Amino acid sequence: MRFFVHAALTALLLSLAATAFGADEDGYDLWLRYRPLERASQQRVQAQARSIVLAGASSPTTDAALAELDKGLSGTMGRAPAHTARIGDGALLLATPARLPALADTASPLRTELATLGDEGYLLRQTRMQGHQVTLIAANTDIGLLYGAFAWLREAAIGNMRAASSAPKLQLRLLNHWDNLDRTVERGYAGQSIWDWWALPDIKDQRYTDYARANASLGINGTVLNNVNSKPEILTAPFIAKAAAVADILRPYGIKVYLSARFSTPLELHETSTADPLAPEVQQWWNKKADEIYKSIPDFGGFLVKANSEGQPGPQDYHRTHADGANMLAAAVAPHKGIVMWRAFVYAPKGAHLADDRAKQAYEEFKPLDGTFAANVLVQVKNGAIDFQPREPFHPLFGAMPKTPLMMEFQITKEYLGYSTDLAYLGTLFEETLDSDTRTGKTVAQTLSGMAGVANIGSDRNWAGSHFDQANWYAFGKLAWNPQATASDIAIEWAALTFGPDQRVTTPVTEMLMMSRETVVNYMTPLGLHHMMGTSHHFGPAPWVDNLERPDWNPVYYHRADRNGIGFNRTAIGSNALEQYAPEIARQYADPHTTPQQLLLWFHHLPWDYAMPSGRTLWAELLARYDKGVADTKLLHARWTALKPFIDTRRYTEVEQRLVRQTQNAILWRDACIAYFQSVSGLPLPPGVQAPAHPLEYYKALRYPYAPGRG
Amino acid sequence: MRFFVHAALTALLLSLAATAFGADEDGYDLWLRYRPLERASQQRVQAQARSIVLAGASSPTTDAALAELDKGLSGTMGRAPAHTARIGDGALLLATPARLPALADTASPLRTELATLGDEGYLLRQTRMQGHQVTLIAANTDIGLLYGAFAWLREAAIGNMRAASSAPKLQLRLLNHWDNLDRTVERGYAGQSIWDWWALPDIKDQRYTDYARANASLGINGTVLNNVNSKPEILTAPFIAKAAAVADILRPYGIKVYLSARFSTPLELHETSTADPLAPEVQQWWNKKADEIYKSIPDFGGFLVKANSEGQPGPQDYHRTHADGANMLAAAVAPHKGIVMWRAFVYAPKGAHLADDRAKQAYEEFKPLDGTFAANVLVQVKNGAIDFQPREPFHPLFGAMPKTPLMMEFQITKEYLGYSTDLAYLGTLFEETLDSDTRTGKTVAQTLSGMAGVANIGSDRNWAGSHFDQANWYAFGKLAWNPQATASDIAIEWAALTFGPDQRVTTPVTEMLMMSRETVVNYMTPLGLHHMMGTSHHFGPAPWVDNLERPDWNPVYYHRADRNGIGFNRTAIGSNALEQYAPEIARQYADPHTTPQQLLLWFHHLPWDYAMPSGRTLWAELLARYDKGVADTKLLHARWTALKPFIDTRRYTEVEQRLVRQTQNAILWRDACIAYFQSVSGLPLPPGVQAPAHPLEYYKALRYPYAPGRG
Repeated sequence: MRFFVHAALTALLLSLAATAFGADEDGYDLWLRYRPLERASQQRVQAQARSIVLAGASSPTTDAALAELDKGLSGTMGRAPAHTARIGDGALLLATPARLPALADTASPLRTELATLGDEGYLLRQTRMQGHQVTLIAANTDIGLLYGAFAWLREAAIGNMRAASSAPKLQLRLLNHWDNLDRTVERGYAGQSIWDWWALPDIKDQRYTDYARANASLGINGTVLNNVNSKPEILTAPFIAKAAAVADILRPYGIKVYLSARFSTPLELHETSTADPLAPEVQQWWNKKADEIYKSIPDFGGFLVKANSEGQPGPQDYHRTHADGANMLAAAVAPHKGIVMWRAFVYAPKGAHLADDRAKQAYEEFKPLDGTFAANVLVQVKNGAIDFQPREPFHPLFGAMPKTPLMMEFQITKEYLGYSTDLAYLGTLFEETLDSDTRTGKTVAQTLSGMAGVANIGSDRNWAGSHFDQANWYAFGKLAWNPQATASDIAIEWAALTFGPDQRVTTPVTEMLMMSRETVVNYMTPLGLHHMMGTSHHFGPAPWVDNLERPDWNPVYYHRADRNGIGFNRTAIGSNALEQYAPEIARQYADPHTTPQQLLLWFHHLPWDYAMPSGRTLWAELLARYDKGVADTKLLHARWTALKPFIDTRRYTEVEQRLVRQTQNAILWRDACIAYFQSVSGLPLPPGVQAPAHPLEYYKALRYPYAPGRG
Repeated sequence: MRFFVHAALTALLLSLAATAFGADEDGYDLWLRYRPLERASQQRVQAQARSIVLAGASSPTTDAALAELDKGLSGTMGRAPAHTARIGDGALLLATPARLPALADTASPLRTELATLGDEGYLLRQTRMQGHQVTLIAANTDIGLLYGAFAWLREAAIGNMRAASSAPKLQLRLLNHWDNLDRTVERGYAGQSIWDWWALPDIKDQRYTDYARANASLGINGTVLNNVNSKPEILTAPFIAKAAAVADILRPYGIKVYLSARFSTPLELHETSTADPLAPEVQQWWNKKADEIYKSIPDFGGFLVKANSEGQPGPQDYHRTHADGANMLAAAVAPHKGIVMWRAFVYAPKGAHLADDRAKQAYEEFKPLDGTFAANVLVQVKNGAIDFQPREPFHPLFGAMPKTPLMMEFQITKEYLGYSTDLAYLGTLFEETLDSDTRTGKTVAQTLSGMAGVANIGSDRNWAGSHFDQANWYAFGKLAWNPQATASDIAIEWAALTFGPDQRVTTPVTEMLMMSRETVVNYMTPLGLHHMMGTSHHFGPAPWVDNLERPDWNPVYYHRADRNGIGFNRTAIGSNALEQYAPEIARQYADPHTTPQQLLLWFHHLPWDYAMPSGRTLWAELLARYDKGVADTKLLHARWTALKPFIDTRRYTEVEQRLVRQTQNAILWRDACIAYFQSVSGLPLPPGVQAPAHPLEYYKALRYPYAPGRG
């Protein structure tokens, strides 16, 4: 017996050691890893969860919350505490006012606090209840309890056990999947779509549940399952049944299903003779279709629509306005409390904007429609006026449509920032946009009713294509809940949940995250340059491209570099896109000297010898930024290699291989752009600046066949 | 301390219990699961592996073998024994004659036995060595040791510890990936291609190593990475570097990399002015290309070519023969010991065969070329003359080309047998073909030099799209090693490795496997019917299709059902395809009464009232077969549900959901085919036969948009 005990202990300790000190991880568990805590942290957690008590009867949502607590505590503590019906000392108590009379008591300060937290908020609090010291997870609804359970588990995993209260600042917190029905993902770099339409509705992948858990842990409360470049079939009965099966899985997690609707669906299904939004047969078709959908999905969220943009059909095909189109759909879903999210990313095949400035089109089309949309229509606006560039100034529509609820559309997937191979934390990008002052009395964040993120999720084992890209999903979710949260706080939290709370890891990882996006900006598009990527696949440098059919498809349209200078003049003597901003901004940005350096060439065309604040010429500054981009990429790599002792082999290696690739990519961008701009400017490289490794023709000849992300 | 011991033990026992009694599995580990053994089995294994000894110095391949033993024993036993340099009692000893002088001793019976086992064989034997009782894994090469290690681990996992000696009967045992460079997989139903061409060569997925392990465990020794519908880019420098990175990972596992070559590659890359195989510039281009490939991949296996078939380019475009084309490529790789596998699946866009019988084309084109191919060319022939139907008679080229080495091409992926949703064990299909007597003095198996399987592998977590489809990969590998192995022995072994050696599971699972393919034949294409599936996606019943451009694309071309009867007359008074078989077969099959029932309508057009051996009319027999297909599908489902107590929840549920879907599919096939054939025959349904659930028009109107497997 003694031998057996000894052997058993040894085996146990070995297995614990393996877990604690770096058993390989594949990233599937995301930030919900629930790895064993150190002893001191375990004691703190133990004190708050000697038992688990759910006040009142169970519901699918409380079932999810309790299952998550079991999973989390089994992982962090080795075992989950018992679920008990009665409150005891040290209980972890989940309760709503409806579930626990004490919380409904109007004299209770908790009741007062809960009243401020709305339908989705929660609080975590040490308190006495029925004579016992308990840790309370309280909310007004079961969804609030689920959010609270995730928040408490987050505290536990990091080893904090802080009191908290939190409620979302935005009502709509959605992912947008650009996932096609054939499982390709437009601009997806993490494998196939997780939605296996062929297998649904009978076959339900375990991933759907884990997807729901991950999103609920961040407070994401809606998901658009299919690409904005939509197909008619998604609104046919077989696909509605498939979407309903997904909705059934997501529902307990507080996540509503939405669908992207193709405006011409009834016409293409040969069920109407037109798609004119003012035609009664069209309106009736959509009304009936909405009824049909809601019969299968009673809490269906509504439609997302890309219309009259990049070849998609829309109301303008019938000489109707965006508002006509949106309001027709809105009327169909309104009886069911559904909404319509109508995208402002309009990018017409032909238009006066082309010769002038594509950046102006959305404002010109939508600003005049402010006040004409139905109450359940939101206009969904990309963060910038071009298209998810590494850096753009905030979109001028924010602050310009006070009578229309707006959704922010961020891109979580990195179409223009190195796919899933380059490390670029987008928390700083999101924060930069959200914190921008529109000078209309509000920051961008304050103009919003909701936030949508174009998902970076795919069938890859680690969901996002790379471990670090999980941070972008995380940051999006956190900022959708609270757009005033800081990118750095989110980074610290993500690092601790992803790699463990050891500060020898979290501090450098956070610093890597925080420097990463600026690094990409520097090696791709410094100083406000934009749209310099390769045609179609959007990978790699191609500032020389000037032969595409539409002027605004060509990088030269955007950088306008010539012998004399570089940059897009958007001031009054240029395209005057500046006029779309509030007067204070327009005034400030009218002068290059008061324009933020990081947006300089977005708004100004300047001579190569323009004197930068650094004392360098613009030409030398541009070169210095490219050099910094490369140097910082190497620094990212070096910082990661220093972490080797602290990270499990698998994740270490997977990140390391990508950083090698990123370094190659940074050098490629730097060298290709310098070779090209030098060919245009005719200027010599200052002493100390290394010449590109190859002549310009080499870079021009590079091709990227079979690049991912076509959809 | 006592409390701690108690808690530790409890935790350990809980974790063991979870492992032994059904912790959820996702199928990623395939048949290499290495789950903890029961105590009695552990003792047997322990007796054979008190230590592990590798005779001689390590190599990448022995590293792989030792790592696998560690992994396997850690899993099955709880811990791996120590590796020691010196042989002791109970050692597990890995040795070759070159590594261990005792084995090189010409007086040793082991030496004599090893001499019969070739470069890849191995033996497992209890013996004395240097005065100690050891378990010997012996082989002539390190690859043999790796194969032996896998064989020993298989024995251990099942709880047997039998002596064995084994050598492959076929030299070439290859997977063919129909994987495109954009990661779509033609006829793939398990997600994306595992080959992430974009990420390669820098980023190397862990899957590549696990893929190598799985294949090496079966003795598969080659893989063609890309689709036979190939693209020119695969032979450009960037993709050669990517393939080389894969080759580096597979090499220690004895797996050579091959590539599918597009015949017109040099022309399409604009590096020659023609692709004529007799043009010197073309020959030189291929010679140089081979040199370039072998510089990166010194053990490159060679090329697989689909030429002049289904629109692919080939030598006939230049009025040259298949032999001219194959021999030109063979000359390029011959100096490097490479081979060319030239596919006989020719299916010309235009030809006299169309009006006559497509089944005859390959024989007519290839039989006359016997003896004209270079020594390093193999002709790769599909198992049957049409295209991987649920049942086909063996291809008449087997036995008909005695001067040409032949490869068998089986399809492991289930293009025509219900994708990865329907359960159909192909071991019985493979066995049926391999065991067929060609009446030329050889079975089909005996005519072969190699075997290729069109892989069913994809990025799905369980690799194959469903747990049971793993059995098809397994059976292919086992039969490629030994084409005389039986499908049922393989099924038993797979069931034990996949679900554990408990006979309460392995017996019913084996019975399910063994009945499954005939079940699919019955509900899809009974009695020798074939090619009745939907257009293009090849899913679902469509026996009515008669309007496609080519006659031989239409199901009606194959079943030829009309008011009077059904079946394809391939006798002398029909297409006379029978003439392509040996005279004994032709004679036997000339008469429907001596033709196997299962091939009856393949060779004969018979009246609906033809008297079957059962006493039923052909019409009634056909209906009975469809009914049996549905009944047996329901039986498969029932047998699985009875296994619920013995299977982990995840795998149980995933299989169960597919069996529900399969039952729907079986009913669909039955009902649609009966509705159609009844509309043609005009015959009433006999009493007791249930009418189809819907009228024929319902089935004709079914569509399957976005079905998987396009590539």
